[in-house]
Amino acid sequence: MARLTLAEVRDIAERVLLKHGFSDLQAKAVAETMVCGERDECRSHGIYRLLVCIATLSAGKVNPTAVPVVYSQAPGIVRVDADGGFSQLAFQSGLEALKQKAASNGIAALVINNCIHFSALWVEIEALTDMGLVALACNPSHAWVAPAGGRGPVFGTNPIAFGWPRKDKDPFVFDFATSAVARGEIELHRRAGKPIPLGWGVSPEGEPTTSAQHALDGAMLTFGGHKGSALAAMIELIAGPLIGDLTSAESLAHDDGAGASPYHGELIIAFDPKRFLGDQVDYHFERAERLFADIEGQGARLPSARRYEARARSLLNGVEVSDDLYADIQALI
Amino acid sequence: MARLTLAEVRDIAERVLLKHGFSDLQAKAVAETMVCGERDECRSHGIYRLLVCIATLSAGKVNPTAVPVVYSQAPGIVRVDADGGFSQLAFQSGLEALKQKAASNGIAALVINNCIHFSALWVEIEALTDMGLVALACNPSHAWVAPAGGRGPVFGTNPIAFGWPRKDKDPFVFDFATSAVARGEIELHRRAGKPIPLGWGVSPEGEPTTSAQHALDGAMLTFGGHKGSALAAMIELIAGPLIGDLTSAESLAHDDGAGASPYHGELIIAFDPKRFLGDQVDYHFERAERLFADIEGQGARLPSARRYEARARSLLNGVEVSDDLYADIQALI
Repeated sequence: MARLTLAEVRDIAERVLLKHGFSDLQAKAVAETMVCGERDECRSHGIYRLLVCIATLSAGKVNPTAVPVVYSQAPGIVRVDADGGFSQLAFQSGLEALKQKAASNGIAALVINNCIHFSALWVEIEALTDMGLVALACNPSHAWVAPAGGRGPVFGTNPIAFGWPRKDKDPFVFDFATSAVARGEIELHRRAGKPIPLGWGVSPEGEPTTSAQHALDGAMLTFGGHKGSALAAMIELIAGPLIGDLTSAESLAHDDGAGASPYHGELIIAFDPKRFLGDQVDYHFERAERLFADIEGQGARLPSARRYEARARSLLNGVEVSDDLYADIQALI
Repeated sequence: MARLTLAEVRDIAERVLLKHGFSDLQAKAVAETMVCGERDECRSHGIYRLLVCIATLSAGKVNPTAVPVVYSQAPGIVRVDADGGFSQLAFQSGLEALKQKAASNGIAALVINNCIHFSALWVEIEALTDMGLVALACNPSHAWVAPAGGRGPVFGTNPIAFGWPRKDKDPFVFDFATSAVARGEIELHRRAGKPIPLGWGVSPEGEPTTSAQHALDGAMLTFGGHKGSALAAMIELIAGPLIGDLTSAESLAHDDGAGASPYHGELIIAFDPKRFLGDQVDYHFERAERLFADIEGQGARLPSARRYEARARSLLNGVEVSDDLYADIQALI
């Protein structure tokens, strides 16, 4: 087990990306998400992702020197063409315009087009809550998930994330896939030869299954039955055709068996509390604190609690990376 | 069993409301929701609601002659003060301004404040899809639902609804409570002396329960575990403090045991596809049709299918009202 400081994580990630031809700006933006992933113990977005990034690059499915271009699509819409790069730099490029449009109009949308999936949505959401904005974000992925009552993959794992800024406190943030679990979780069960719980997937014949292999061959399921399925459809629509970008089925077709990361768009909606509430903003945000107190006061946890605890640990002690993963990454430098 | 045409439903609903002192505009707006409820076989929003409306009026919890006032809160925000009336007339009053702001900015919000709950969100969503808009709506209710991992009521049944217009077809619409089931469903089990499935509620001690009475005394649960719970919290926040209106806990406190309908705000977000997509709107909306075809092609149903089938039946044959309910309503005229 290797123990690394967050500065070391950042350094390794940037070196690998630069070595493989990513531009300086792209490398910095992508590496920062991995630092956040390791820091918050969301390993699937940590430096493990370097392997995925380089595989996606090798498959010719990402532009390592992409230069995002920002457009004002409408008074309430910022559009960023990610130029076939990963999503982070595109997001950062559009952030200031989104803030200004939200401040002008009260509500505004940031549309990211033509980007390669590497959305750690909670990282983007926190960039917005840091600006005092309330924010919602979502995107399609690859079509792996069946609709409620169906058996064939139509939806992606389609994450949705939300953030609410809190005075002198970590923001209220959630970020979850609308699939019952992450695809990686089913992969891990398959490798370990373990059955999966009912409700994670269906066989190619559409039958409920506890076989990880059958679920991978068939389709994953959404969380929450027909309600989760409806949300997954909404995400396909508003972060797909509404923004002129691919659905999860189209993304998988575009991949054409290369096994690269999804190619898609992303929709982010920002609400400026000052425009909704004027000089009453502090009063009403104090009322929101009572909601959080009512949740925590009965021993329930806020959705972001685990991440913030991990963050405190990592900032103090650094992070642990398995020897296998560390060796795989060293081999890329 | 009484069989009524939709015109008869409308007539009865308006007569009852007018008889009890609702203004002409309020009566027409509220009655129309009941017509839609009966028509689409969503009985809980049908003329059964007349009993609830009159009970809420008798408790002094609704202003029957409320005159909604429309404000332009910001270039992207319409605010309607419902003046303590039911939500329908407030919604209708803000609709044109919402459409104009969405057309100008691409995205806009309609905030309804100080209204008494009677949201049949799908009815409002269809008014927006009829205008060619993509729309999202939500509201808190009374605090009856515990957060994931908790045991005390914090959230309302907090519905969320979404709509997507389709050319020459009924729109894609979903409208669901973020609670596992409607509170009325648990009430029905209690009356029938039937156990409820695990997952609907917890006892006052926070234990999983199959007793309807224990769940009503304790708390309901959200759908979809911690993910549904996170969504319920989001709805509390964006349709509560963000719009300067009550949370579900505050609404229940305001009720003070009267048993009236929730007092709250509502947030509706409208996206104008023409501003997102320009002259590419038809092309991209045609792509959305492939998503729907992929869902229906495998035998799964779109969320709104049941409602549209009921609608076709009701328009042809009228609707059935039980003798008991019909007698209860006649007694109100």
